[in-house]
Amino acid sequence: MSDDLELRLLRNATAYARCIDDGRLEEWPGFFTEHCVYRVTTAENYARGYEAGVIWANSRAMLVDRVAALREANIFEPQTYRHLLGMPTVLDAQDDRVHSETPFFVARITGGLRTDLFATGRYVDVHVITPSELKVDERVVVCDSSAFDTLVALPL
Amino acid sequence: MSDDLELRLLRNATAYARCIDDGRLEEWPGFFTEHCVYRVTTAENYARGYEAGVIWANSRAMLVDRVAALREANIFEPQTYRHLLGMPTVLDAQDDRVHSETPFFVARITGGLRTDLFATGRYVDVHVITPSELKVDERVVVCDSSAFDTLVALPL
Amino acid sequence: MSDDLELRLLRNATAYARCIDDGRLEEWPGFFTEHCVYRVTTAENYARGYEAGVIWANSRAMLVDRVAALREANIFEPQTYRHLLGMPTVLDAQDDRVHSETPFFVARITGGLRTDLFATGRYVDVHVITPSELKVDERVVVCDSSAFDTLVALPL
Repeated sequence: MSDDLELRLLRNATAYARCIDDGRLEEWPGFFTEHCVYRVTTAENYARGYEAGVIWANSRAMLVDRVAALREANIFEPQTYRHLLGMPTVLDAQDDRVHSETPFFVARITGGLRTDLFATGRYVDVHVITPSELKVDERVVVCDSSAFDTLVALPL
Repeated sequence: MSDDLELRLLRNATAYARCIDDGRLEEWPGFFTEHCVYRVTTAENYARGYEAGVIWANSRAMLVDRVAALREANIFEPQTYRHLLGMPTVLDAQDDRVHSETPFFVARITGGLRTDLFATGRYVDVHVITPSELKVDERVVVCDSSAFDTLVALPL
Repeated sequence: MSDDLELRLLRNATAYARCIDDGRLEEWPGFFTEHCVYRVTTAENYARGYEAGVIWANSRAMLVDRVAALREANIFEPQTYRHLLGMPTVLDAQDDRVHSETPFFVARITGGLRTDLFATGRYVDVHVITPSELKVDERVVVCDSSAFDTLVALPL
């Protein structure tokens, strides 16, 4: 039961990561609810309760806009990501809302050549889960390091 | 059901990685079918449909030969790997043939000292799966970076 | 059955890693039995059968002392870890004692800024498992590299 929930969350997070790593960015907003919150922040700011983030959106439409902007801008050096995810921890589950946390490593491959460990951290999530659906209603991407590349471009 | 399949694939990939990371290379070909295909290539070449690879084999016997050559050559600097695998995604399952994809990170430890993130990518696999058996019939190791060390020696 | 065991071990190891990565060090000894063994060693020394380790404890009380010392000393540069774990492999299970092995990557974030791949390796474990309890009775942290930072401070 709890097992099933963790595995469902892991499968969903795996599909999410695969979507980004494959470069299918247009599919990325589809993992979220319409009125979702998506934030990228640092462990330090998260611990202090700061609401701001390096990236911030409060609707799926904003995520769609972000992808469009990324596609148009296209000024940054070609890069791809590779996510690796840990096992989700279910923190709270009430009705159809599930709070969880999932650790991640993201490697970045720049210019098809150089590989570096770009970011580590955890997703602090609220999912809306029904038997037929599983959507991210809130995802706070809490990065362990505060040293953000000015070129944070692809979603995490 | 699908869960079980993913977990079976993950368990098998974990045993595969452990075999390499433990240095038990002679056991490595045993994970494959007799007429297997094993290739190591780059994301760029894979996307272009190139069949060639940094490493290429179309039978288990060739994998056995490769291990023998590695043991005899022994000219490269001592190195070990540490694989970490993500959750497999089942892409297609018909009869006893299962198509899947599994992300990986591989760290390399050189001379027992220096650790670097050697390769990231994904296994694009076809497994032959029966209740009693699970073998790799095709494994394309798609590395995200094109910067291959000339010393790619251990299997990935 | 075996699945359940592996998933239980993974869930426990995930909670263990999360405890360290969150900085809740006082909770860390609670993952162990009273008369536990905890060692951090290198692959080279482990292969040679050396019992010594960079860190060594043979009771939970020693782990409690270690945490207290860490909190008091506080002389090292601020750092946090991020663990990522692979799937556990059950090597042997008799009565309530389960032998297993779990691969890990640990990233270290120093001063909240610099991220490096600090350690890779595997936990070689004996757990005491009952329906209601799962505790580490022996954990040998076998690090792939012998290049230990003199500042190994946080538990692995």
